[in-house]
Formats: sequence, structure tokens, C-alpha cells
Amino acid sequence: MINETYKEMLGKKSVIRSLSEFATKRGTEIGYDNVFDYSLGNPSVPVTENFTKVMINLLQHENPMALHGYSPTLGNPAFKEAVASSLNRRFAMSYKPTHIFPTSGAAGAIAHALRAVTKEGDEVIVFAPFFPEYIPYITGTGAKIKVVKADTKAFQINFEEFEKALTSNVKAVFINSPNNPTGIVYSEETIKKLADILRDKSKEYGFDIYLISDEPYREIVFDGKTCPYPSKYYDYTLSCYSFSKSLSLPGERIGYVAVNPAIPEAETIVAMCGQISRGTGHNCPASIIQQAVAKVIDETSDLSVYERNMNILYDELTSLGFEVVRPGGTFYIFPKALEDDAVAFSQKALKYDLVLVPADSFACPGYFRMAYCIDTEKVERSLDALRKFVKTEY
Amino acid sequence: MINETYKEMLGKKSVIRSLSEFATKRGTEIGYDNVFDYSLGNPSVPVTENFTKVMINLLQHENPMALHGYSPTLGNPAFKEAVASSLNRRFAMSYKPTHIFPTSGAAGAIAHALRAVTKEGDEVIVFAPFFPEYIPYITGTGAKIKVVKADTKAFQINFEEFEKALTSNVKAVFINSPNNPTGIVYSEETIKKLADILRDKSKEYGFDIYLISDEPYREIVFDGKTCPYPSKYYDYTLSCYSFSKSLSLPGERIGYVAVNPAIPEAETIVAMCGQISRGTGHNCPASIIQQAVAKVIDETSDLSVYERNMNILYDELTSLGFEVVRPGGTFYIFPKALEDDAVAFSQKALKYDLVLVPADSFACPGYFRMAYCIDTEKVERSLDALRKFVKTEY
Repeated sequence: MINETYKEMLGKKSVIRSLSEFATKRGTEIGYDNVFDYSLGNPSVPVTENFTKVMINLLQHENPMALHGYSPTLGNPAFKEAVASSLNRRFAMSYKPTHIFPTSGAAGAIAHALRAVTKEGDEVIVFAPFFPEYIPYITGTGAKIKVVKADTKAFQINFEEFEKALTSNVKAVFINSPNNPTGIVYSEETIKKLADILRDKSKEYGFDIYLISDEPYREIVFDGKTCPYPSKYYDYTLSCYSFSKSLSLPGERIGYVAVNPAIPEAETIVAMCGQISRGTGHNCPASIIQQAVAKVIDETSDLSVYERNMNILYDELTSLGFEVVRPGGTFYIFPKALEDDAVAFSQKALKYDLVLVPADSFACPGYFRMAYCIDTEKVERSLDALRKFVKTEY
Repeated sequence: MINETYKEMLGKKSVIRSLSEFATKRGTEIGYDNVFDYSLGNPSVPVTENFTKVMINLLQHENPMALHGYSPTLGNPAFKEAVASSLNRRFAMSYKPTHIFPTSGAAGAIAHALRAVTKEGDEVIVFAPFFPEYIPYITGTGAKIKVVKADTKAFQINFEEFEKALTSNVKAVFINSPNNPTGIVYSEETIKKLADILRDKSKEYGFDIYLISDEPYREIVFDGKTCPYPSKYYDYTLSCYSFSKSLSLPGERIGYVAVNPAIPEAETIVAMCGQISRGTGHNCPASIIQQAVAKVIDETSDLSVYERNMNILYDELTSLGFEVVRPGGTFYIFPKALEDDAVAFSQKALKYDLVLVPADSFACPGYFRMAYCIDTEKVERSLDALRKFVKTEY
């Protein structure tokens, strides 16, 4: 008998995917160049040339048995060492390689981090709006998801609602900054306040509440700023990272969990991740990818296109009268729709070949997401369509 | 609070790992060349040169966005197509690409297959002796493991015990042929009889019992034979494969689940695997590895060393008086120890720098496993130690 739980999940088709399929189909009719597809959060710039060189060099000169052989259960030592020293250098942390667990991208990182610090029936807080894939990540562990309503003024944290939600059933709090879908970077003030509350409540409840920080957009930050590193502000933090966006390697499934060394059981948590892998069949990321990324650890693709696109769209959207908070990073922008029903709004936009994602599935109805990881030239061409859409329909 | 279940798993150190660590340590004392390490099932021959060429060619000529971009949720189309047509060609099956789900090696394949066809509390039958990692694979899904005692005469299936165990709580039966640890290939007769029983009981119980077939050693078969393909004999079969052994790519984590097209819900099961991945954070194998393996789908490394080693060891073991069934494949051999306690036996062997794995953890006490995926020259040098060990101690 097939498992009905997973079968039922099939029925719930993702809005993003449906829209993306529409865009592809429409592309076959009018040419994909003429579809202003803002649906998918897929990097639009290639990996660095150096990464390709490093890969070829490994294939040409490394012993194939070492190159393609099993990684140790807790990951390739060179990769773990490279990640730890990079984080230490950049964020004044003191990770050892034993605090780093390599994973299949951020998805693997989050799946391991959640299993390590929650058990069946625990509650995990997430802040709206949030990436809908967090739901299967969390419920897949047996934990329950508890959503804190959005702070729609600034898309920081709605602390009033958060404090109400933070009961003693909550074992972990989940954040994502820079944020998908809002593009907002949590301010140092936000993170400090969050850390203070978590410390107070941990004391009150007699156990340490874990912070799970999903940071795949950490390197895509605008205006020359950097993103505050949450683990620096709150010890009980598991940082989940992926090289999908910073190095444009989403298909190669490479990321990690970094466990704050101040946690007394930090190394145990990493070792536990190895045990968690046994049950889920995850094992390590591909050996050659771990070895290659270790050699280019501080490189990123040329990410400047995202800031350029953001500025063009932000200016146009505000001049068209949209209520929108200026993104501090990522490749997303999150305006309020021009009518209450963002689904209806997005449907109308399709008539102008504009593919916008209504934010209902991000737990923030009335807003929509634009993923501007596309060529700047196309963003510029889309402005006419955007103007026409707004002026005709509203 | 960290999850105690996973923490407790840490305490249970694997015998194989402990022995392998002993071998490494002893190697630093007397030179690893002088340690006759038969503990680890790790391929000892390199991947084909053509695979390396294909990888370099992809890196040099493929668009990096396509090469390293997200695979579709259900896997890279070229890989799925290559697997389906290879299986069809070799085993006269009729898979379509939509029946193939790419996974992170056999571990990922088994984890998905089990979740697709069992639910919390169901029972899954395995036949002793079996690879101990099956335990976390099965219990990790919430199912219970039910062990059928070994047929120690031929290491085929103990059908008497099997029929007793096959109650209506059993939703899936797990097989592994060619087998780790015995090296035995299930005969066509065994598989036909197994299929008949499963069909009969499925009818009796009113649901289809699934067969989960773990086949990473399918290509390592001796005496010019081939291994009967279980899915050919029983429709409700999910075949789990890995290229770890056939192509010597264990670290690259590439394998698949192939769902028999005769199952009415076959394509649904593949789609469900995509949903299962969401919760476990698995996602696809690395994109470049899927694309490269698709191009070398019918290649194997030069696997002849394993047969050569088997013959040398089998002859020596029998001439020393060991009770041992001649392996039909893999790189394992599974003799009966020369005393009842195989752990004590293996401990004594260490004095002769022979690293043998007692089979208690394989649910078959009194036997031991030798993994002869090492250089033939070393196998030959080990024979003196083996003779000395047996003659001195027994």
C-alpha cells in the first residue's frame, strides 16, 4: 500500500510551479524573451570561471579513488576546514571543522538542523512571510509549525506576536535573513532583540531554545552593507547555508550546518547530523563538489546584477504607487498588490505577460513576490508591461 | 533540547568502523601495506577514464547555468532516460523515464522506496544476514524491522521461516542480491519462489506487498553469469541502485529507484518520491554527476579484480577447512568462524594483522565477512598470515 500522506501532498500543486509552467508554455507561443517571468528564484549568473578550472584540475590531477571515494560520515575534512576558517575570518567566530556538517544545499541543512534540536510534537516558530518549502521541512520531522504574523511595515519581526507565540512548547525559532520573499535584511537591532527574548525565555523555561538561521542569500546584500550574522548574537544558533545562490550552483546541492561552538554539545550535534543522515539516506554532498568548493570558499559569482535589477524595479514600483519596502538583499521584492486579492491581481498581470507570484502561499495575502534574477535588459523591457498593466487595470 | 534518539545512536559504534580504525592505526605502526584489512566494502578500482573525459568535456563546453542549475524535482531528464533505456535493453523491461527517480546513491534510493510504500508501524521483512545500515533506513521511516533467520546452507532464502514471518502487518520485503555480506546471488529459482509467495499472500491479504530490491552489486557477478533481475519476476518491485560499486563513484552519491511500470500507480510513486525529498531535504543528486553518468550509463570500472580475489580466497579458505559458500558476486565472502564466537575469532585474527568482521551485527553470529576489494597482490600476501593464524590458534 502506498503511503497516503505523500500521495496527498501531490495534490497540492505549488503556485510558484504552476506560474512557472504557465511562463514556459507562454514562452513557446510568443518567445520566452517576451514573457516577463518573475516567478522562480533561480540564479541568473554563472559560477566563477575559477570554479570550473578547479573542477577540471581535480579531474585531471587528483587520484580518482580519493576524488570520487566515500567522504567521511561527517564530511570532507578540507571542506569543513575551509568553511570554518572562512566564517571565523568574516564573522569573528571560532568554529572548528568539527562544528561544520556538509549537506545537500540549504534543504539538507535545514532538515538536519531541525531533526537535531526538535522531536515529534515540538513547535517551531516561523515568521510570515516565509518560503512555503519550510512547511514540509518542519512537518517532515514530526514537529509542528507555528506562524507569527508579518510585520508588514518593515518586514522585520512582529515582536508583539512573537512573544505571544513563544510558549514552552516552542523548541526552535526559524529565521531567514536576507529574506525570501521580502528581500529584507534583519537589522542588528532586530537580531539583538530576538536574541534577548530567546535568552530570557530559555532561562524562564529551563531549556535552551534553538535558533535555526537559513542564510542562502547571505552574500547578496545591497548598498555595500553586510548582513548581521545571527550566530554572533545568539549562541544557540545553527546556521544553515547553501552555495546555490552565492556561487550559482543550485543543482550541485552543496551547503552546510554550522553549529555555534559556544553550545556545550556543539560537536555532538554535528555527530548527530551524521546519524540523522543514516535514516534519511542523505549522506554527504558529492565528493568532487565538496573538494572544489573548499578551494573557492570565499568566491562568489558576479552578484551585482541583482542590485541593479532591484533598483530599477523599486524605482518603477514606487513611482507607479505600489507600497513596497526597499529590499536590502536577495533577488526578491515584495510589493503590496493593488487590490486585496493578490491572486486575482497576479491573474490579471498574466494578460500583460507579467508573471508575479501572489504571496498567499508565503502566509502573507495581499502581497506578491517578484524574483528579479533575470537579465537587466529584460527587467527594463518589462517596465512598459508593468505600466500598461497598472494603468489599464487599476 | 537536542534530540535524544539521535544522540543515543552515537553511542552504538559500528563494529566495522572500529575494526577499520584499528587497521588504520596498526597501519601507522607497521605500514598499511602489511595490514590485511578486509573490513571495508570500498571499491578498489578507479572510475573509467571515459567518465573523467565526459566530466571535463561537460565543464569545458556545457553552459554553466544548465550544468550546475537545479535539476527538475523528479531528476535530470537525460539521466532518467538513460537509466530507463539501459534497464529495458538489459532486462527486457519497459520503463519510461517517468518510472525512474534519481537519488543520492542506494541509501537515498532505499530511504525513498521505504517511505513510499510503508507507513508508521508497518513491518518490513529483511533476510539475515543483512547489511546493518538497513536498520536505521527502516526504523527511520517509522516502520518496524522483522528479521528472517539465515539459510546458512546456501545463503539463499529460508522460506520456512519467511512464510511464518509474512503476516498481514508486513507491507514490504527487502532483498539484496548479490548480497552483502555473503556474496551470494539469489538463483532464479529463489526469486521465482519468493515472487509466488508474495503474489499468494498479496491475494490473501487483499493488498500488494512491495518488494524492495537493493542492487548496488548487480554488475559484480562471477563466472560470466548475470544476476536475475527481481523486478522481472515480481511486478510490485522497487529496484534500488547505486553507481558506487559498478563505476567506483561512492562519494558522488548517485543512484536511483526504478519503479516497475506494471504497478498501476508506478508514476505516482515516483512523483511521491519527489514529495518525500521535500521533508528529508534530499533533493536530487548533483546535477553534473547525473549528466555525466547519463553519458556512460552502460560502462563499468574494470571489476575483474574482485573475481580474481574471490577465487584465491575461496580456494585458500576451503583448503584450510573453513565452511564457506562460494560467492557468485560482490566483493565479499562469508565463511563460518572456527569457533562459535566469531567476535573472539576475529579478535585473535588481529594478532596476525588480519582484519575480519564478525557477522553478529549482520544478524548471523558465528560467521565473519571478508571484504576483498583490495589489491590482488595484498590478498596473496595475506594467505601466509591466514594459514599461520589458523594453524596456531585452532
